[in-house]
Amino acid sequence: MANFGLMRQLAKEQGGKIILLVLDGLGGLPDSDHSKTTLESAHTPVMDKLAKEGSLGLSHPISRGITPGSGPAHLALFGYDPVGTPVGRGVLSALGIGFDLKDGDLAARGNFCSVDGSGFIVDRRAGRISSEVAYPLVEKLDEIEIAGAKTFVRPVKEYRFMLALRAEGLEGDLADTDPQVVGKKPLPVTALQPGAMKTADLVQNWVNEAAQVLRDDRPANMITLRGFGQDPNLAKFDDVYKLNAACVAVYPMYKGVSRLVGMEILPTEADYTPAQEFAVVAKYWNDFDFFFVHIKPTDSRGEDGDFEGKKTVIEGVDQVLTDLLDLNPDVLIITGDHSTPARLKSHSWHPVPTLIWAPGTHLPDAAKRFGEREAQVGGLGQFPASDLLPLAMAHALRLEKFGA
Amino acid sequence: MANFGLMRQLAKEQGGKIILLVLDGLGGLPDSDHSKTTLESAHTPVMDKLAKEGSLGLSHPISRGITPGSGPAHLALFGYDPVGTPVGRGVLSALGIGFDLKDGDLAARGNFCSVDGSGFIVDRRAGRISSEVAYPLVEKLDEIEIAGAKTFVRPVKEYRFMLALRAEGLEGDLADTDPQVVGKKPLPVTALQPGAMKTADLVQNWVNEAAQVLRDDRPANMITLRGFGQDPNLAKFDDVYKLNAACVAVYPMYKGVSRLVGMEILPTEADYTPAQEFAVVAKYWNDFDFFFVHIKPTDSRGEDGDFEGKKTVIEGVDQVLTDLLDLNPDVLIITGDHSTPARLKSHSWHPVPTLIWAPGTHLPDAAKRFGEREAQVGGLGQFPASDLLPLAMAHALRLEKFGA
Repeated sequence: MANFGLMRQLAKEQGGKIILLVLDGLGGLPDSDHSKTTLESAHTPVMDKLAKEGSLGLSHPISRGITPGSGPAHLALFGYDPVGTPVGRGVLSALGIGFDLKDGDLAARGNFCSVDGSGFIVDRRAGRISSEVAYPLVEKLDEIEIAGAKTFVRPVKEYRFMLALRAEGLEGDLADTDPQVVGKKPLPVTALQPGAMKTADLVQNWVNEAAQVLRDDRPANMITLRGFGQDPNLAKFDDVYKLNAACVAVYPMYKGVSRLVGMEILPTEADYTPAQEFAVVAKYWNDFDFFFVHIKPTDSRGEDGDFEGKKTVIEGVDQVLTDLLDLNPDVLIITGDHSTPARLKSHSWHPVPTLIWAPGTHLPDAAKRFGEREAQVGGLGQFPASDLLPLAMAHALRLEKFGA
Repeated sequence: MANFGLMRQLAKEQGGKIILLVLDGLGGLPDSDHSKTTLESAHTPVMDKLAKEGSLGLSHPISRGITPGSGPAHLALFGYDPVGTPVGRGVLSALGIGFDLKDGDLAARGNFCSVDGSGFIVDRRAGRISSEVAYPLVEKLDEIEIAGAKTFVRPVKEYRFMLALRAEGLEGDLADTDPQVVGKKPLPVTALQPGAMKTADLVQNWVNEAAQVLRDDRPANMITLRGFGQDPNLAKFDDVYKLNAACVAVYPMYKGVSRLVGMEILPTEADYTPAQEFAVVAKYWNDFDFFFVHIKPTDSRGEDGDFEGKKTVIEGVDQVLTDLLDLNPDVLIITGDHSTPARLKSHSWHPVPTLIWAPGTHLPDAAKRFGEREAQVGGLGQFPASDLLPLAMAHALRLEKFGA
């Protein structure tokens, strides 16, 4: 990430306004019924005009062949090293459910599991109990009190929950207690460096209490913990890019990652449409240099395997895109954090079609519309997603020259 | 720069002859009046023929979005890590004005500034005084004598000058004295490591004398210093590439960077045309394996915002390009060190159209002529500029196989 140091060194206080519009899981594949991808088959006259005028390319969220989760995929879009940036999975879980993680809090992912009479794990996911079954158990775990730390337990989904500890001097360098196989007991909470031993003891005390609380339950009579971590104190957008940045997102996860990098989180409601999100951008247009706007349902429909549904979401965004253009941004980027082909019903590694439209500074290429195959021959080429913010900064004329 | 070690390991004494023809600031953008870039709209039948026969691609001088100065841009073209190679801005200033920097000399950039009666900076550039106003002040500073070192002060442009110190045992690890904001005093000269303390004292003595000399002048009554450095003792071309290399350039800056990497600087005059530069190549053709030929006015016309003027320069080069082809080079590369779109009147980050013509070894691609959009779909793809020398070496069959 040489880029990061260069951004700190070269970023200017002044320059154009940037909108980064992320359609989550935008990239796709043709289905067996379709010769085109979802994006290619969507009717998107506005995006196509922008593609014709501007530059297209394909971004690789992590590296070739790697399918990212939402956390690292967004860190990459924000220009952070998605592999080297130590955001623990516990922290991402906390962000994902909107838990208000404070500086110094320790967070972990938890799984309900099933153990036999001798404490050996017989099912690592407790029969994949439903959210409804898990909820009262989570409530019981949340009532546990231990000496030396305040604890919080929150449901995530089905057999998964989040545990957070709040106290002075917690250290997150702890090994997972999940042995990753059945037939073993959950591992004791173990410090990975001497400074974390006190924290390990606190967590072990909580685990012992949890085992007592769940003792008579079936099938979820035990828990395991993974991905311990604390707020990584990432460098902030105003420090790295000298950008006064705002996030317009509906889901807690994306607000959370944006908060990690120092964006202001603008108010939205859980049922906001793209048009309503764009109205938030318009309302705060004069207050910020940079807007990250996140659209979730593209990914959700992809995960559902709903090719037509995903297409409808993309077309809906296109229909209101002029609301953003009417603000006269200097740079508008349209991309995804990763691909979510309906055909695979999951995130994938396929590179993400990316459009940079910056009428004062872009170099038009041969692309005639917005889509995966047009982006393959676009002028931006194929690039790591973490190069996108430097490109945005450049197109907004927000970077000094490097060297004489 | 894994490349660098590989070049040392794999370079052969024998092989083809290479010409690296750099049209400074070659890349561009369409103007509002033009649908084509300068290069695309120039009539270049010879370059187009070479493009049709050879391979095109786009090179990124530093990394995506980064606009380079000439120094790092040329280091990259020569295969050196442009970010990690520590050539101080003072050294580049010295090279840029043709000052004969000796091994061990310390060089810095200087600014005239204005301070109030208490020594606080009120204008960091002394009202941007003209070169004519600055010149006699530079002369006065050049007459300063301090114990322990010989000092040299030379004009750069307007309020900028170069300071060099010559003595045994100088150490360049000094902090800038420019506080970067008005309302503060110039910072004392500070050593960044203990070994540089004696050098810091010498420079501070010079600064004190300079303050005395300028005391009664207005508006330039003080100076600040930045970018202290010494000749970085870069690895040389004959060591890394086993190339006997020569530079044909008109401007001191490019001769200077070439000298840093161990090229022989062939004699030119300040008013040489491309044809005259090519005649120098012809004259010394039998004496060298590698010729770096630098054409400056493409960049100058771009900086002027003169689309047509830049086009005329490119066409002028094309008209005499057969002078180089008549020498039967095994590899001819035509590229720029960076883009300088007339539209932006400055260097830019846009990747640089690059042509490799090596009739014995190149793989022709679909490109039909030389230009930015043709290069976007060229066979070389998009690549870091520091990969260009390895490609040149390969096409000249000057590299052994790596591994068995």
